[in-house]
Amino acid sequence: MKMHFKSLVCLAVLSTPVFAAQHPDPLPSWNDGATKSAIVEFVETVTTKGSDNYVPAEDRIAVFDNDGTLWAEKPMYFQLFFTLDRIKDLAPKHPEWKTEEPFASVLKGDIKAALPHGEEGLLKMVMATHAGMNSVEFEEMVQAWVKNAKHPITKRPLTEMIYQPMLEVLDFLRDNDFKTYIVSGGGADFMRPWTEEVYGISPEYVIGSEIETEFAYTSNGIEIQRLPNVAHINDKAGKVIGIHKRLGRQPIAAFGNSDGDLQMMQWTTQQEGVTFGLYVHHTDEGREWKYDRNSSVGRLDKGLDEAKKEGWTIADMKNDWKVIYPN
Amino acid sequence: MKMHFKSLVCLAVLSTPVFAAQHPDPLPSWNDGATKSAIVEFVETVTTKGSDNYVPAEDRIAVFDNDGTLWAEKPMYFQLFFTLDRIKDLAPKHPEWKTEEPFASVLKGDIKAALPHGEEGLLKMVMATHAGMNSVEFEEMVQAWVKNAKHPITKRPLTEMIYQPMLEVLDFLRDNDFKTYIVSGGGADFMRPWTEEVYGISPEYVIGSEIETEFAYTSNGIEIQRLPNVAHINDKAGKVIGIHKRLGRQPIAAFGNSDGDLQMMQWTTQQEGVTFGLYVHHTDEGREWKYDRNSSVGRLDKGLDEAKKEGWTIADMKNDWKVIYPN
Repeated sequence: MKMHFKSLVCLAVLSTPVFAAQHPDPLPSWNDGATKSAIVEFVETVTTKGSDNYVPAEDRIAVFDNDGTLWAEKPMYFQLFFTLDRIKDLAPKHPEWKTEEPFASVLKGDIKAALPHGEEGLLKMVMATHAGMNSVEFEEMVQAWVKNAKHPITKRPLTEMIYQPMLEVLDFLRDNDFKTYIVSGGGADFMRPWTEEVYGISPEYVIGSEIETEFAYTSNGIEIQRLPNVAHINDKAGKVIGIHKRLGRQPIAAFGNSDGDLQMMQWTTQQEGVTFGLYVHHTDEGREWKYDRNSSVGRLDKGLDEAKKEGWTIADMKNDWKVIYPN
Repeated sequence: MKMHFKSLVCLAVLSTPVFAAQHPDPLPSWNDGATKSAIVEFVETVTTKGSDNYVPAEDRIAVFDNDGTLWAEKPMYFQLFFTLDRIKDLAPKHPEWKTEEPFASVLKGDIKAALPHGEEGLLKMVMATHAGMNSVEFEEMVQAWVKNAKHPITKRPLTEMIYQPMLEVLDFLRDNDFKTYIVSGGGADFMRPWTEEVYGISPEYVIGSEIETEFAYTSNGIEIQRLPNVAHINDKAGKVIGIHKRLGRQPIAAFGNSDGDLQMMQWTTQQEGVTFGLYVHHTDEGREWKYDRNSSVGRLDKGLDEAKKEGWTIADMKNDWKVIYPN
């Protein structure tokens, strides 16, 4: 068949937008390159019917850390902002806090003096603010707080300190019939009131740390009382235990940013078949924060070595991401 | 318009199958009547857009007890058959069981003598058979066992001792965008290996009792070791705690058959808005079993009173179900 040059030009002009409409870029906030390609290729590989590496839709499970992976975690975990705000709210009911550390320092506004009371001090603050009410009261408390909470440095609402490129990964996976779970060291009940609106992740897809609860018949009907005891710490090996308890099987993709996600990444990628592990590497001092091996919050040290050794994907925030936060 | 009788007959003949094709009976194994209507009307009510009682798809969560609600539970819970079979399998490794109760009676084939050792004896048997291996080994063990396990009286495979009418309810709800969860007193890890194939319920939709587990790095990679300690008993109030831990919110429909489901039914139906509670009542001595207030397994006593008081639906197995088991 003979074809005139003009026809060829017409075809070329026409075919580009047609193709783009059929295959819009699923990750528009990611720069083209190896990282973006790795994500896209993984999804194509496991969703291509007839391929040896095809994974049926019901087995497509992806897990995401939250702090530092889906939203920021500097200068400290955002759940700690909630804890500090709640201490101020509750102070009138606790006159003893004026002299009891770490509460006294918090009430004086001296956070730096409050934090070095270590894990015990932190636990004291969390229990004083996360227990002693029923589940509905706690949910409403978190909802009210998160609506107005702003980041102390950027002044953005905390719920807008989320990573646009990662929102696109969540959407891309869900569009390909993946179930997307949050697997965070943060409290499950602290995240559930807002993850649907912020990430499109409904409460039953949230796995996190838990405090003990107790069933009670009250004059208002059945209530679930929150008790000041830790039931499960969903960090490091606890993430694997948490996923196993909740899902009864292994995810095929894991996304994290710190050593706290290492065991979950190892467990996900040690299976037969195609799996995917990705670390978000905080390399962007200008637009976000730059930290890894020596950071107290979100330390990525052993994980970085393991990622290189195992060939996991590393998302370099500065070079791979066109934008950090949503517009 | 004038219409000949023959045309009317044609219309009548034609219209029945056309209507049936558009609205096939979602519950063909249920006899027409108040129970079937109540199920259909509930689903229609919460899925009718624009209605005051419309529930968005993401909030359509239904919970189902397993033993006695989705499959039979007589003459004893089927997980106990597994436990007894495992004791026989493991006996060569445990010479001490020859003289240690309740194992000694089990090995002599005298189940009646083994069971009266009470909760402590039962726990001993469960821990001896459900712990001491890793999660993958346990899964494979259950899979291998369930494939061949037969009911001692009916001789049917245990996985066919399931209730056809309830399978239809599961399908009907899922066709209407409900998420269907199992919430059972049985072990979560005992159910997960077969619920997908048997009920169309994948592992992450199974909430059950749990034993403690431990993360371990081994020469085969990461393993989850099963420890001989109870972590959660998912019965009575424990069902409410289990649902809250896992889903972070209340279901809008609950299906059970015993007093063990009562708190879950109360919690589900105490909310604002349209909710649904259904008790399967074992009334069919001929085709299944007949028991309620005085049964040691699957006792339905307080629940039956509460169901009548609260207006929950009671499925009368003998009169409401055309068939019990699938063909």
